[in-house]
Order: sequence, then C-alpha cells, then structure tokens
Amino acid sequence: MTSLFSDPVHGFISVPKDLILDLVQTPVVQRLRRVRQLGVGYLVFPGAEHSRFGHALGAMALMQDALQVLAEKGTPISHEERLAALAGALLHDVGHAPFSHTLETTLIRGFHHELMSRALIVDLDNDFDGRLGLTLEMFDGTYLRPFFHELIASQLDMDRLDYLRRDTFYTGVAEGVVGVDRLIKTLQVIPEAGGPESRLVVEAKGTYAAENYILARRLMYWQVYLHKTVLAGDHLLRAAFRRIRRRPPPFPPVEGSPALMFFLSRIVEATEIDDPVVRARYLALDDTDVLYSLKRWQHDPDPVLADLSRRFINRDFFRVTFLDEPPGPQRRAGWKASVVDWLLAKGLATPTDVEEVALYYLTFDDSRHRAYSTGSRSICILERDGSLRELSESGDTTAISAVATAVVKPYVCAPKEVGV
Amino acid sequence: MTSLFSDPVHGFISVPKDLILDLVQTPVVQRLRRVRQLGVGYLVFPGAEHSRFGHALGAMALMQDALQVLAEKGTPISHEERLAALAGALLHDVGHAPFSHTLETTLIRGFHHELMSRALIVDLDNDFDGRLGLTLEMFDGTYLRPFFHELIASQLDMDRLDYLRRDTFYTGVAEGVVGVDRLIKTLQVIPEAGGPESRLVVEAKGTYAAENYILARRLMYWQVYLHKTVLAGDHLLRAAFRRIRRRPPPFPPVEGSPALMFFLSRIVEATEIDDPVVRARYLALDDTDVLYSLKRWQHDPDPVLADLSRRFINRDFFRVTFLDEPPGPQRRAGWKASVVDWLLAKGLATPTDVEEVALYYLTFDDSRHRAYSTGSRSICILERDGSLRELSESGDTTAISAVATAVVKPYVCAPKEVGV
Amino acid sequence: MTSLFSDPVHGFISVPKDLILDLVQTPVVQRLRRVRQLGVGYLVFPGAEHSRFGHALGAMALMQDALQVLAEKGTPISHEERLAALAGALLHDVGHAPFSHTLETTLIRGFHHELMSRALIVDLDNDFDGRLGLTLEMFDGTYLRPFFHELIASQLDMDRLDYLRRDTFYTGVAEGVVGVDRLIKTLQVIPEAGGPESRLVVEAKGTYAAENYILARRLMYWQVYLHKTVLAGDHLLRAAFRRIRRRPPPFPPVEGSPALMFFLSRIVEATEIDDPVVRARYLALDDTDVLYSLKRWQHDPDPVLADLSRRFINRDFFRVTFLDEPPGPQRRAGWKASVVDWLLAKGLATPTDVEEVALYYLTFDDSRHRAYSTGSRSICILERDGSLRELSESGDTTAISAVATAVVKPYVCAPKEVGV
Amino acid sequence: MTSLFSDPVHGFISVPKDLILDLVQTPVVQRLRRVRQLGVGYLVFPGAEHSRFGHALGAMALMQDALQVLAEKGTPISHEERLAALAGALLHDVGHAPFSHTLETTLIRGFHHELMSRALIVDLDNDFDGRLGLTLEMFDGTYLRPFFHELIASQLDMDRLDYLRRDTFYTGVAEGVVGVDRLIKTLQVIPEAGGPESRLVVEAKGTYAAENYILARRLMYWQVYLHKTVLAGDHLLRAAFRRIRRRPPPFPPVEGSPALMFFLSRIVEATEIDDPVVRARYLALDDTDVLYSLKRWQHDPDPVLADLSRRFINRDFFRVTFLDEPPGPQRRAGWKASVVDWLLAKGLATPTDVEEVALYYLTFDDSRHRAYSTGSRSICILERDGSLRELSESGDTTAISAVATAVVKPYVCAPKEVGV
Repeated sequence: MTSLFSDPVHGFISVPKDLILDLVQTPVVQRLRRVRQLGVGYLVFPGAEHSRFGHALGAMALMQDALQVLAEKGTPISHEERLAALAGALLHDVGHAPFSHTLETTLIRGFHHELMSRALIVDLDNDFDGRLGLTLEMFDGTYLRPFFHELIASQLDMDRLDYLRRDTFYTGVAEGVVGVDRLIKTLQVIPEAGGPESRLVVEAKGTYAAENYILARRLMYWQVYLHKTVLAGDHLLRAAFRRIRRRPPPFPPVEGSPALMFFLSRIVEATEIDDPVVRARYLALDDTDVLYSLKRWQHDPDPVLADLSRRFINRDFFRVTFLDEPPGPQRRAGWKASVVDWLLAKGLATPTDVEEVALYYLTFDDSRHRAYSTGSRSICILERDGSLRELSESGDTTAISAVATAVVKPYVCAPKEVGV
Repeated sequence: MTSLFSDPVHGFISVPKDLILDLVQTPVVQRLRRVRQLGVGYLVFPGAEHSRFGHALGAMALMQDALQVLAEKGTPISHEERLAALAGALLHDVGHAPFSHTLETTLIRGFHHELMSRALIVDLDNDFDGRLGLTLEMFDGTYLRPFFHELIASQLDMDRLDYLRRDTFYTGVAEGVVGVDRLIKTLQVIPEAGGPESRLVVEAKGTYAAENYILARRLMYWQVYLHKTVLAGDHLLRAAFRRIRRRPPPFPPVEGSPALMFFLSRIVEATEIDDPVVRARYLALDDTDVLYSLKRWQHDPDPVLADLSRRFINRDFFRVTFLDEPPGPQRRAGWKASVVDWLLAKGLATPTDVEEVALYYLTFDDSRHRAYSTGSRSICILERDGSLRELSESGDTTAISAVATAVVKPYVCAPKEVGV
Repeated sequence: MTSLFSDPVHGFISVPKDLILDLVQTPVVQRLRRVRQLGVGYLVFPGAEHSRFGHALGAMALMQDALQVLAEKGTPISHEERLAALAGALLHDVGHAPFSHTLETTLIRGFHHELMSRALIVDLDNDFDGRLGLTLEMFDGTYLRPFFHELIASQLDMDRLDYLRRDTFYTGVAEGVVGVDRLIKTLQVIPEAGGPESRLVVEAKGTYAAENYILARRLMYWQVYLHKTVLAGDHLLRAAFRRIRRRPPPFPPVEGSPALMFFLSRIVEATEIDDPVVRARYLALDDTDVLYSLKRWQHDPDPVLADLSRRFINRDFFRVTFLDEPPGPQRRAGWKASVVDWLLAKGLATPTDVEEVALYYLTFDDSRHRAYSTGSRSICILERDGSLRELSESGDTTAISAVATAVVKPYVCAPKEVGV
Repeated sequence: MTSLFSDPVHGFISVPKDLILDLVQTPVVQRLRRVRQLGVGYLVFPGAEHSRFGHALGAMALMQDALQVLAEKGTPISHEERLAALAGALLHDVGHAPFSHTLETTLIRGFHHELMSRALIVDLDNDFDGRLGLTLEMFDGTYLRPFFHELIASQLDMDRLDYLRRDTFYTGVAEGVVGVDRLIKTLQVIPEAGGPESRLVVEAKGTYAAENYILARRLMYWQVYLHKTVLAGDHLLRAAFRRIRRRPPPFPPVEGSPALMFFLSRIVEATEIDDPVVRARYLALDDTDVLYSLKRWQHDPDPVLADLSRRFINRDFFRVTFLDEPPGPQRRAGWKASVVDWLLAKGLATPTDVEEVALYYLTFDDSRHRAYSTGSRSICILERDGSLRELSESGDTTAISAVATAVVKPYVCAPKEVGV
C-alpha cells in the first residue's frame, strides 16, 4: 500500500507505507520542510521558496521510475533493494544546514553535509532496528551492486535529476529544463545481470538528452545557483555570522536562537558530529532560527551586526561585480580605501576598528563550477554496437568537451553606495 | 523603465521603477516573503510553500493586464490611476498575520487583515509623501470611478484571480485551474467612458469562463483551503496559542519570540492597530516567529504546550472528521469522556485540570463557504444585446445558482489515538 | 518489451510489443492519423489540428494507468485481460468518419461510428487469429467482469478522460482542464474481488474531482465542441455534400475522390457496413479525401457547390446566431425572404431553383448537450462508510444535479452578408 | 481593435484588425493550415501534427513582443513599421511546399521556398494596394533600419524562436525548450536611436539564454528534424515522386491530384515562379494533394509506385542507418547486390529494370547541420561595458565555438527486410 503526495513537479508521488512513509514522518525528514532548497535563491527568484522536503520526495519518486525501467530491461531488483534505494534517495540530503550550502562551513569547520547525512542515517538505522543497513551500503558505495550507488550519488543521480527539474519549475528558468523522463527511460545496467561489475549507462539514443542535461545544469549554475545577487545574499549571511564570532568585548552577548548560538558561540569541528549532542543541536537548527535571529539582530547594539542583519532582512544586498581577472594589490587597496572612508562616514566604524569592520564590507572571492568531470565517475554511453563510450568522447557531443574544465569567475563584493 | 521579476506562474513580471519598485523594496512588502500564502497548507500539499510576496507581485501583474485590456476597449486610464491601481493590487494583503488566515483572530481580538492592510498603506502613504492617496480611495471604494475598487476588491478582483492560479500551480490541483487570461480579456467597463456610474462587467463570451472560475474557486476551498488536514493543522496552532494565554500559575513564563509574546501575553483589541507601537510589533511578526517559538515550546515544562508544539512541528496532527449533522449533547459527552480518559492515561492531565486540558484536545467546529454571492457585489455579464445580467441568472449558468448558498460542514477534531 | 511514443500530453507512452504494437501498425489504426479529432475545430482553435491517432494511443495509456491502480488495490487482472482492455481502448474509435462526428450521418444513413468500430475490430480479430475475442466481449459489455466495459465505454471511461485532457491541451482552453491523474487514482472496483457483480466506482476523496470532470466536460461542449463557428463549419461541409446528392441534371458528374464519391453518389444504409466492400471503401476515406474534393469543387461549374466549397477552404463561414427560443413561422419566413433576395442578387440562384438553393444557405437547428445522465450508467461514489451514492445525490455536488438535464440551444445559420 | 486567437503555445494572440487580420484571411495564408510544419515528423512524433498556420501566427505574436520590448528601451517604432514587421513575420513562410522542406527541390528544380514567399508577398502587395511595400523592404533587407530584417530573417529571428518553442511543445521534446521570453526581453537595438547603422543585439544578461537557444536548436535538429525515421519518411516521399517522373512506358498515366501532377508531369524550373500560372498551381497544392495521391497510387499498376506509396501511407518505412564514415565502393556494391536480390525475389523488379528500381530502394546520403555561423549574420552580445562581442567569442560560451562547425552524418537507407 502507498500514500499519495500531490507534487506540482512530478504529479502524484506514491510513498510506500512500508518503511518509506515512516521515514518521511520522522522529525529528521520533517525538518527538511524548514530548509530552503536554494538558500537565499528565493530573494532573487521569488518563486523559489521550496524546501528540501519536496526535493527529497522527488528524488525518491525518480528512483522509483529508474528502478522500474531497469527491471523492465532485465535487471532484477529485490524488494529489499528497492526499499533501500528509495530510502537512500529520500535521505541523501537530510544533513543539510540551514540555507542549504550557504552556511555549511560557517557553522561547522571542515564540514560537508554528506557527512552529516550519513551520521543521521546511522541514527535512523538504529531507530528502525537496522532496516537501513543496505541503504548505508548503497550510500557508501560498498554494496556489491554498484549501480545503486550511482543512482544515489554520481554525475547522473536522482538527486541531480530532481533538483534540476524542480529548480527550473520554481525559478521559472525555462533554459534549465531537462528531459528527465527521457534520460531515465534510457538508463541501463550492464552487464544486464547486474553483477558485481555492473554499472549504470545511458543508451545511445539518450546521448543528446545526456548532453543537454550537462549543459542545462551548467546554465543553472551560472544563471541561478551562482547568480551574482545570490552570491551577495550568501555574503551577508556569512558576514553576520563571522561578526558574531569575532565580536569585540564591549558588546553584550548576542540574543538569538539558542540552537544557532550553540554553533556560533564556539568553534565546532567536523569531527564533533560523532557526538549525539552536536547532532541533536544540529537537528534543532533550520532556516527559522537564522531568520528569527537576523530579525532580532537588526536591533543589536553592535551597529555592524545590526546593519548586516537589516540588509539581509530587507534584501538590501551588497553589489557583486564579476571581474575579468583576479584584482591586483593596487586595485584592492583602492577599493579598500573607498570602503574605509565610507564606513567612517557612515559611522559604522571608528578609526580603531575600521580595519576589522572592512572585512565584512569588502570581499574578494570567486565562483567556480565544472560542468562535467571526465574522471572515474563519468557518464557512459552504451553505443548501438554494444561498446561503451565516455560521454565527452562522442563526435555528437563536442559541446561537452568544451565545458569539461572548471570555470572560475573572480568577483568583488561591496556596498552599492561605495563605488567599487 | 521597469525591473523584471521571474515568476514561475506568470513568467516575467515587469515592475515599474516609478513608485511600484520602491514599494516592493519596503520592509512592509518584503515581510510578505516570510508569510506563507496558504498557512499550514504546505503541510498537506508539499509544493505549497509559497509566500504572500509572489502573490502580491502576481496580483499587480494581473492588474497591468486588466488595465491594458480596458484601455484598448476605450476606457481611458491616466498614468496616476494606473500607478494607484498597481499599488493597490500590490499592497492589498500587506496586513496579513503569520500563517495568513489561521491566526488572525487569535492574535488580535475582532481583527480582520484588511483593517491592518489599510493602516499600513496609510503609513506608507506618509513615507511616500502622499503618493498613495489615490490608492487609498480606490481601496476604500470612494474614488469616483468605482471599477478600480472592483479590480482591487470584489468577487472578480485581481487578488482572487492570482491566488487561484497561483495556488493551483503550487499545490498541483489541476481541477482548480482557471482561464485567467480569458477572463481578463473579456473584462469591460460600462458605460465605456468609465464615468462615475461605471462598473466592471464580463462580456457574454466570458460567461462560461466566469462560471468555471466560481466553480474552480469553490473546489479549491473544499479540496485545499478547507482540507481536513489543513483544518487539523490550524487547530493545533490555535490550541497552542490559547494554552499560552490560559496557562496555569506554576509554570514559568513562556520563552518565545518577543514579537509573538507581545500579542500572546495580553489581549490586543482590533482598535489598537491605530497605535503605531502595535503596528510596529505586528510588522516584526511573521511565520518565522511562530515556527521558532513552537520549536522551543516542544521543550516547555508544561506538557500540554510541549505536546501541542511537538505535534505541529513533526506534523503529527489530530484527526478531523466531517459529520453529516452537528453532534448532539450525548454524542459530544461520549467523545469528551474518551478524550478525558486518554489524557489521564497519557499523563497530559490530572483529574484537577483535565476539564481545562480537554478544551485543547477536542473541538467541535464547522467549515463554511459560499461559492458565490448574488448580492450587491455580484458578477455582471454584458449580454450581446447590450443588456446586463447577473451571473447566476443566465440559462447557461445553472450550476452557479446551485452553489450560491453557503455550505456548512460540521466536524470534530481530536487526537487520532482517541477513537472519535 | 515495449515501444516508446513521445506524446506531448501524457509524456512517454509505452506500447507493449505483444499484440498492441502490431495493432498500432495496422492500416486501420494508421488511418486515424488522417482523421482530425475535432473535425472542423481546428478552424476555430488553430492549435487543435490533432488526429484521432494520438487520442487512441492516449486512451490506451490511461487504461494502463487505471489497470495498475486497480491491481494495486487488490483487483486481480490477468495478462490476457490487460491486453484485451488495452486493445479495447486503442481501437474504440477506429470507426470514425472523416472530420469525426460532422459527417457521420451524411455519409451513411442511420450510422453511428461505434457500429463501424465494432465491425472493424471483428475484421482485425480475424486478421489476428481471434486474439481480440476478449476485447469484443469487453466492448459489447458481455464479459463477466463488467468494469472492463465501464473503462472502455461509460460516463467515466478512458476515452473521455483522454479526449478532455487532450482537447484542452491543443485548444488552449484552460477551463476544461481535468484532474485526470487524481480521478484515475481514486478508481476502485467493488466488490474488491472483481466478481461478476463488480462495478467501477470513485472513492469519496475523488468526489470533487468527479464533479469537476463533469462540469469541465460540459464547458468544453459549449465552449469548443459546439462553438458557434464550429457549427458554422459543420454546416458548410454538410451543405456541400447534400448539394452533390441533389445536384440538378445539367451539371456533369462531380469530380472528387473516388472513395468519397462512392458514398455521395448513392445512399448507403447503416446495415451495409456488414458488406466488406463498403468497409474497404470506408477505410479508404479520411479527411484528405474531403479536403482534396472541396478544393477541386471550388472550380465546379455548379456555382452553389463552388461557393460552398470555396467558403469552407478559405474559412469564409456562414454566421450562426443562437436564439432564445425556436423561431416562429413568421420570423423564419422573413429570414428566408432575405436569403432568397440575396441569392438572386448574388447570382447563386435563379427564380427557378432559388427554393432549392436556399436550403443550403439558411438552416434552423439546435445544439444540445446533457452534461450528466443519472440513469443506469451513472457515476458512483464509494463513501467512506462503504455505502454507494450516485454522483448527483451527494450534498457536495449540488452543481451536478443542476446540469443533469439536457440543454437545447436553437440557432439559425446563414451567410454573414444577409442580415439574419 | 484586435481579434483574439487561442494558441496553446503562446496563449491568446491578438491580431490587429488593421491589415493583419485581412492578411490572415487570405487563401494564401489559410493554405498554410494544410501544410504540416514538420513534414513527415508527425509519423515519428505523433503530437507533431501542427501546420504552418499556427507558426505564422506565433511568429507574428513574438514580433509584437519584440517590438514592444524595443520600444520600451527607446527605439522608436512607427505604426507603419509595426504593421510591416508583423506582416513580415506572418508571411515569411507562405511559400512553403507541401510537407514543408521535404519536397521543395523535388517539385521545382533549384527551388527555395523563400523565393516563393517573396513572390507571393508581391502578389498580396498588389491585392492590398501596395500596403506591403515596407514589408518587402524589410524582407529583402533593403529597409534603412536593418534590425527589422534581422527580426524577420537572421540567426535570432522570430521565425526560429517560434518554431523551436512550438515544435518542442508538439513533439514533447523537453530538451529543446528555449527561454523565448527571456531572449526577447534582452533584445536591444544599437545605437539606441535605431538609425541606419542600427543592429539587433542581445544584452549581456541574455548570454546564457542565447547560448542555450543555439544548443537547443542543434538538439532539435539531431533529435527531431533529422531523426532517422524522419529521413526515412522523406526518402519514401521523394522516391515515389522520382518514380513518377521516370516511369517507364507500358504504364498508363498516373492518376493523382491535378495540382500535383502539374509539377510531376514535367520539370518546373525555379525561374518559372515568375509565371502567375505556376504560382496559382503552387497555391492549389498542399499536403492534402500529396496524401490523396499516395493513397490512390497504392493501387497503381506499377508495383514500384504502389509499394512506395503503400509503405508511406501505412508508415512501413525503410531503415536509415547512420555510418561512421561514407561507405566505400565495395561496401556499396555489397549492399546493392543484396537489394537487387531482394527486389527480384519480391517481384518488384525484373532483371531488365532492376538497376533502375534499385535506385528507389537504396540510397546513400548524409544529413548535415551547422548549429551556429560565426559569419556576417552572427549573434552579437552587448557587454556591460558597452562593447560588442560575437556570441562565440565570450569565455562564458565555450560550448558555442564547439558547435560552430558543420556536422555531417552519412547514412544508408534501404528496406528493413534487406540486411543493410
């Protein structure tokens, strides 16, 4: 038996009542309703207010489709494997921090959300009497049928297929639309028996769809995920958090969400996620805490924190300007002088602390994205003659090789009022 | 000049830089990003996480379309009128409470959000040197060309057209889809000169579209807005708030968002919205405060508040059961006995306070909706022979007269574990 | 194994290679590519150029969905039953005449396309060594599990669900959109075992979707299928055909498609479809023959035939005017006098034949539609308490009872140039 | 005043009653309803049954959008220019042959449909008292404001934007979706005054949208327009026509549509389109004539013509196989031997004529497409610093340079039954 969820992206999603619905109802998964999928993206694309909860359901729904396609093509999939793979798709992102990627490293030093996802799946495995053991093997890539790992975590996994489809839906960015159905219909496991050497491939007739998928994802990165106003919003959030950590003595302790202050009042290392207390605090933390705290900090006695918070809440972001090349020391010094003057004139800093304060108001950084990696986890095309070809090596996909190197775009970020 | 917003529902929305963009950027309008359009609806329709901000933009966009259609049909509209009407559509909902309709009367006694919207538009009018005077006239219905008021607030206003279109988009409820474009294309003002007696009518060729709009809206009420799980979620929120107001002595003061506690620690009357302090507190309040507070209250020493809060956060709602008729005293007494037994057994109440506690765990209520009102603000069809006919009076719209009376559905709400 | 068809309405449609794909490839089914789904509808809704072929595939695809839903709910469906039902959905409309309903009775006296569909399925059954025997039983309603017949031919069959969805897609009439997925998900067979007494019902949670489906279908009738310009186009086609049958002596035989002339040069009775020669001629006939012939007839020496043909080809239709009541003899006589004068003035008739010619240029008729029949094949709702309720009898569906009577709209049809 | 057309792709299209609606109602434009946009494409993508009529309306609708965007950005556009440009978009394709591109050169030697379009616009200009003079200048590129020509015919014209959007809609090929709205919103004319040196450019923020448009169009070519089954269908049509031209003596004259036989019974040269008789015959010709004739030819005494026709009508196509390199003489000879044997065995040829007949049953050809031309009519990006950059020269569009060379794919086409 299944339970139906009405999803605007995929239509009705059937959630098996066996195990999967129980997982959906855990606080760990329900928390994803309070973590925005695109972080500050909703402040640039007003429709993109969707949370990671819908994405988790969607990735699971696509996993159902993929497994059905593979089964019809002769790859046997047992009931246990099916549930394990569905659980893997559902849970792969439970470790995300508030505002998704924005705050990951700001909250926990050396953190990556996949580590937390894994730790939380282990906790759930305990709660569910070891029923997630196979999911963990698939997640880790240690299960003897590696294509399950590829469906959960690879360059062509259900996570990516769902988020591209979903994010184009909510942002309205038509250019990112991907033929998810076609791609899934062309998946195959070779050798067909699905033995230990098995891997996931795309049939030749899916070549253009696969190419399009890579190019659409690249476009979404530059057009949405790394949109300069999104970068500006990210910057404000991180600046406010850094300010709290380095806040000078005269100011009283910051008042904010206790769950958030747990992570801001001291330095938490990635290794500490082994500590159940840290995990519990982390689970108590979501976008709500961040927004609630920023709203309060607008009235903090520290003018820098108040200014940064107010700017975020009222969407009065700094300006991000992309540069043709990394700025040299002289250019940087010029900008800094302007920022310093402006801070002093605005009363946001005094000659004593302006050096420190300028750190929050002027940033050099770069955004980088590699559209496709030709390495070990590349996408394989199964040619009509039975041979395998790495996606970028086909004569039909010259556009892929052209985007297989990382692109780096340096930028400077400062208040609009300063002429940077 | 205009600024473009990418809206997944209407495509690109052009926001005039003159006045309207400035209004969009005020904290009053930006706050709408933190108020969910469908209140707890997102806990039933996972895609419906959209806020009132997109709706405000959308209503403004439809107003642009409507004014253009009317102008092309010979109704002159001046630049000032256009800006005033766009501002009216943009601002009509700024007074909404957190979780939209759910909490209105719980926070302020005798409140209706339109009162607050008006008060906030007056504040904005002050901030913008009186540039919203005409908007206020249109909002109030005192402007000499009454069709502007009808476009802002009537049974066929841009507000309703946008929210139906938008809510069907995000919930994925195909049955609610309305031909918004067609309806707007068939609008007309008569007499064409748009004089003082002018009113908004639908041309005969839009009769079926208008009928469909009424029926689709009715369906959205019963299928979405008054969905029984939505009612159950609303109940939990209101129960938690009532509990705080009536919390017995031994417990320490509740810790929650100060902006929220301002409204829960005492009784605020609707008349107090004239007080700028109350308005400022209200503006500081949004969904964030409610969710943040509920998360904290999960750990409150009061087991009732903790239980209600935990249930909301983890979406462990009570069950709502619709009844064929209002339950008689005997039936009510039986249910109450079951709830009392259950509360005592669960340790949520003692014999001393179980009467009080049962108030939060057992509710009789009804949901009611009238799909169409034939009264003074009814929808008028302009027949091909130039005569006017009220929508429900046409032989083509027998379905309308069938739904023009209010439907009332009594229900009982109690924990699933209790066999009610 | 299946073959995939890319359908813009339902996405990828999987066609089983066993039997069903072979049926798709027969000339009988391929002919449907040359029969427009909406007859002359494409001359009013320019996107509605779709043929019955896509609809046949779509009805089959929805049958797949419905059978899967029923199977998951415990109604066992054997492989043979499944193929038979899919074939039934695919083939249910193979008997359609060119321009679908427009020409049915004009070509064959007393004809109904279902008779021809059945005869052609019998032919296919012979070609396929009796593999369509079960399909014929389902089609006829003689199979011991009657719900299969209901899925193929009832007020809630896959035919209707597909054509509503499809016709709204191609016409762009948003008001007709129906929640096909939701409806199919709420189907059930009771008693669950699917025994001889079994019937198809809609679960209570589908009540509003079922109501919406009836209302949307009604809207599509008045807004699209019986659109007054569609009626005007139908009229021209039939008038040209009648003229050929009654063409006076001096004119030479009409040159047109031989397949079409077979049916126009004499009167074919519905009983003659038992004759294989008649069926072969019928199969040779499609929209192509009609359009080709009309194009030639534009240059026919008979000015009446030439005028009617030219008007159709260039979309220079007569005007249809709906009337509040059937016109009395005096009104009719007045119109006729105008038409007669106009025909004489235009040189389309002489005093000798103007009585005859006026028959093609002035028509009184009515369009009629009953949105829902409460009779024996009504739609049944399975209430939550296990009882059955006919759709129009629920308190939630007052709109249905309001549209359950036939609506009749009289109209007059004449050239625009005549002031009728 | 305007007239509304309901288009499933763009929604309601407003057609100005001044000039443009009159043009729509001419037989020249109405004929486009009988010419399929994708030729035989509907036999591969069943939804793609749309005609050039909807495309002509759509291109005109996008021209309206583009002109409004340009006007808002300060490029003055007079009423006459607007009408002329709308007419240009509407009429640009009126010269298309039946089945669009498939038959162009088969019907008229050395033909290109743009020549015929121009000749027909000249005819219309005569009918409309010279009101299309400006349209002809824009069409020819001789008008002093060259951006109008670019909007009508260039690598970024309204024709291409509409057909990509439209063909993805009807084929259901999601990968081809293009952000048409975004692209049009980023168009600009520089210098802004729109003087003689003016040209159409894309603003920097449209760079990725422009890149995506090129890549999506390329994908549509390989995935749809040059799909191997489409090529196979094209082949059959052309083979049947060639057979008629070269039909050996014993056979009686072919019976088919006179309009079609006019072009098949002798060789018509491209220069003859100056002859009004040829143009009239051409206007009488559309898909109807081709399908009608093929249906008749199924029963032709010439077994070759009958076989080719039957295969087309019943969609029993040859197989097209793409080759890694052009086949050498030995490979060709081997295939030919197989085809010859098969033809003799099937009785489709005798030893006397098998050489000739084999020409229809075995073809070597190649399909070729250049996704983007960097030459004189390239797409220009207006960078944020005011400079111009050719699309392929930006660091952000490496994928473009990778596809700017022509790709050639050799293939062989022969009956499936022959093992080629």
